[in-house]
Amino acid sequence: MKINDNYLKLKDSYLFSLIAKKVKEHTKAHPDKDVIRLGIGDVTLPLVPAVINAMGHAVLEMGNTDTFKGYGEEQGYSFLRKAICGYYAKKAVTLRDDEIFISDGAKSDLADILDIFSPDNTVLIPDPVYPVYMDTNIMDGRKISFMNGNASNGFLPMPDKNVRTDVIYLCSPNNPTGAVYSKEQLKSWVAYALENDAVLLFDGAYEIFIRDEALPTSIYQIEEAKECAIEFCSFSKMAGFTGTRCGYTVIPHELIRGGAALNKLWLRRQTTKFNGVPYIVQRGAEAVFSDEGMTQIRNDIDYYINNARIIADTLTELGIWFAGGENAPYIWMKCPNEMPSWDFFDYLLDKTGIVGTPGAGFGANGENFFRLTAFGGRENVIAATQRIKKLRFDEMRE
Amino acid sequence: MKINDNYLKLKDSYLFSLIAKKVKEHTKAHPDKDVIRLGIGDVTLPLVPAVINAMGHAVLEMGNTDTFKGYGEEQGYSFLRKAICGYYAKKAVTLRDDEIFISDGAKSDLADILDIFSPDNTVLIPDPVYPVYMDTNIMDGRKISFMNGNASNGFLPMPDKNVRTDVIYLCSPNNPTGAVYSKEQLKSWVAYALENDAVLLFDGAYEIFIRDEALPTSIYQIEEAKECAIEFCSFSKMAGFTGTRCGYTVIPHELIRGGAALNKLWLRRQTTKFNGVPYIVQRGAEAVFSDEGMTQIRNDIDYYINNARIIADTLTELGIWFAGGENAPYIWMKCPNEMPSWDFFDYLLDKTGIVGTPGAGFGANGENFFRLTAFGGRENVIAATQRIKKLRFDEMRE
Repeated sequence: MKINDNYLKLKDSYLFSLIAKKVKEHTKAHPDKDVIRLGIGDVTLPLVPAVINAMGHAVLEMGNTDTFKGYGEEQGYSFLRKAICGYYAKKAVTLRDDEIFISDGAKSDLADILDIFSPDNTVLIPDPVYPVYMDTNIMDGRKISFMNGNASNGFLPMPDKNVRTDVIYLCSPNNPTGAVYSKEQLKSWVAYALENDAVLLFDGAYEIFIRDEALPTSIYQIEEAKECAIEFCSFSKMAGFTGTRCGYTVIPHELIRGGAALNKLWLRRQTTKFNGVPYIVQRGAEAVFSDEGMTQIRNDIDYYINNARIIADTLTELGIWFAGGENAPYIWMKCPNEMPSWDFFDYLLDKTGIVGTPGAGFGANGENFFRLTAFGGRENVIAATQRIKKLRFDEMRE
Repeated sequence: MKINDNYLKLKDSYLFSLIAKKVKEHTKAHPDKDVIRLGIGDVTLPLVPAVINAMGHAVLEMGNTDTFKGYGEEQGYSFLRKAICGYYAKKAVTLRDDEIFISDGAKSDLADILDIFSPDNTVLIPDPVYPVYMDTNIMDGRKISFMNGNASNGFLPMPDKNVRTDVIYLCSPNNPTGAVYSKEQLKSWVAYALENDAVLLFDGAYEIFIRDEALPTSIYQIEEAKECAIEFCSFSKMAGFTGTRCGYTVIPHELIRGGAALNKLWLRRQTTKFNGVPYIVQRGAEAVFSDEGMTQIRNDIDYYINNARIIADTLTELGIWFAGGENAPYIWMKCPNEMPSWDFFDYLLDKTGIVGTPGAGFGANGENFFRLTAFGGRENVIAATQRIKKLRFDEMRE
C-alpha cells in the first residue's frame, strides 16, 4: 500500500488555518481587545431576501411528497443553467446550457478539473495567487512554472513566448492583488494559449466587482477563447454564498484537446464522482438572476466596493502603494518599510487588532505585500482605517 | 497538452444515463402507458418534519446579519460531527469528532478518497457492485482485480489468501444485491486487510436498513478495524437526502499507511479541494439525530422495508431466486429463463412498464440478474408486483 506521496511535498499548513491559529492565540492573550477581520475573503452581509424566499420555498417543497426532489442531474438543474446563460447573454456571450456545470463552489471545480488532464502536463501559475492552484497540482505531481507578478507589471504578468506550457491559470479580478486584466491583455493570453495548444483555466470568481465597462468580465468576451478556455465562477462573493455553496464552470463545446471534447470528459467526471448541488441551494442561486435578486445583490456589491474605496483612500492618504481597491474586493498593499509580510501580520494584529493576510502566503512575489479585503462590515472598515492612520510607520523599523 | 487518457478506457455511458435514455424512448413510443420506476435507487418519501423545520430555521438564520454563516470548517460543523459520534456510540463504537468528515455525499468521498492513494496501488472490487468503485479507479489507471459474487456464496465474496491487494471495497448491505456480511465474515476481511497492509473502504450507505441485531452496522464493530478501514455513510437513503446532499466519512486516527496518518492526508485533501457542505443542509442532517428526527426517519425506513418484503414475497411466490429483500432496500433477482439482464430490462419495461436495473450494469457476475429497489411509493410497489404476477415467464423463451 502506497500513499500518494505528493502530499508529503505540500507545506504543512494551509494559509488560512495558520492565520486562524495566530488569531486564536492573540485573542487568548488579549481577551479584552477586539479583532477586526479583513483577512480571509469571507463576506459579512446576509443572503438577500430574494434568495432567502426562494430557499424557504424550496425547503417546503422538500417536505411534501408531490414536490419533493430526489437526485437531480449531476451537472445541475436546467432552470439554473438557463438562468446563467441569460446572465452571460447580457455580457454578449452566447452559451448553451449544456456548456454550464453547477457545482458546490469554484474551489472544488478548480481542484477537480485536474482529473481530466494528464499529470504529465506542465502548468503555469501566476505568483502571487490563490494557493489552491499550486497545492492541487503538487498533489498530482505536475511540473509547475510560475510567472512573476510585481509592482512594475501591476501584478498582471503577461505571456512569455520562451515558456511553453499546457495549463495556464488566470484569475481576474485577481485574488489576492485585486488587479484586473484588460481586453488587450486577455487577447494576448488567448493567442498564447492557442499557440501552445494549452488550456486556460480562467477564475472569474470576482467578476461582479468589475464596474469599469471597458474591462472584460468573462474570458469568452475575447474572440476564440471558447477554443482554449474554461471559466470558473462562484456565487460565494457574487451573492454571499460562502456558507451556502454554489458555483459553476463553463466548458464550451469548441474546446477540444487530444481529440477529446473537454466538455464530455468533465461531464463523465461529474456524473461519476459527484451527485449535484442541493435542490434548495440551486433554487437560491436561480433567484440571484431574477430582477429583484440582481438589484439586491448589486446593492450588496456596492457596499463592499465602497468599503474597498474607504481602505484605498486611506492608503493613498498615507502614501502606501497598493494594487486593487477598485473593480475588485481586494486591496493589495506594500508593507511599510519593506517589512516581511508575516512580520507585518503580527505587527498589525498586535498594534491594531486587524487581521489581514500576509502576501507571502500567496507566493514568493507576495513577500513584503499584504492583502486586505473589502468584505467587512462598514463600521469595522472605518474603525480599521482609523487604527491604521494612528500607526507610526516611521517608527516601525525599531 | 495531454488529457487523462484513462478516461478513454471508460465505457461510453454511465449505467443510469443509459436506463434514463431507454425509459425516455419507451415513454415517447407509448405515451399512454404509465411507468413504475424501481430502477435507480432514489427515494420517494419527502424529508421528515424535523429536518424540514431545522432547514427552514437555518434559511432564516442565513438572511439575518447576526446569525448569517459564511465559510464553515471544510470537514463540517462540530455540531453535526458530534451528533454523528452520538449515533456511533449507540452502536458501541467510540469515535472522536475529528475522525468524522462531512461531505456532499458518499459518492463524492468514495471517488475522492483515491486522491490520497498512489495510482500504483492495486484494488480489489466485488463483482457485482456499485459501478463508481470501478470507474473511479479506471480514471486513475489503477490495476483492478475482481472478486466473484454469485448465488453460491450469496453474493458475499470472501478473502482469497492467494490474492494480494492494497485497497479493498466492501459494501454491506450491498448495492445492488442487498446481501449483508455477518460479523464473522467481516472479521475475516479485517484480518485479511491487516495481513496485506491494505485499506478497507467500507461503504455503509445502507446500514440503517439492517434490523437483524446480529448483523454489524459499522465496520468498527469489528475489532482492529480502526487500523485498516475507512467507513463511508450517507444521509441519502438514511433520511431521503438524495437531492439534499450530505454524507460523512470516518477515518480513525489509528489508520496509518506508509508512515502517514490517513486522517491527516484526507483533512489536507478536503481543506485544499473542498469548502464544506451548506450550513442549511448540515442543520437538516443534525436534526436526523434528534429523538424526533430519528423516530420519523425510522418510520420511513419501515415503509421501505415493508416495500422490500412485498416484492420479496411476490418473488418467493413465483419461485424466483433472489438475494436481499431484508436488512436492505434492494432485491436482487435471477432473471427468469436465464434471460440476459438487458433483455429482461427491455422485456419488463415493454410488458409491464416497470423500470429495474440490469444486473450486467454492476459487473460481469450481474449478468442474468436484475435489481429492484424498495424506494417506490407503496401503491406503485403493489401495482408492480401485480403486473409481475401476470407475466407468463414460461412463455418468455419464445
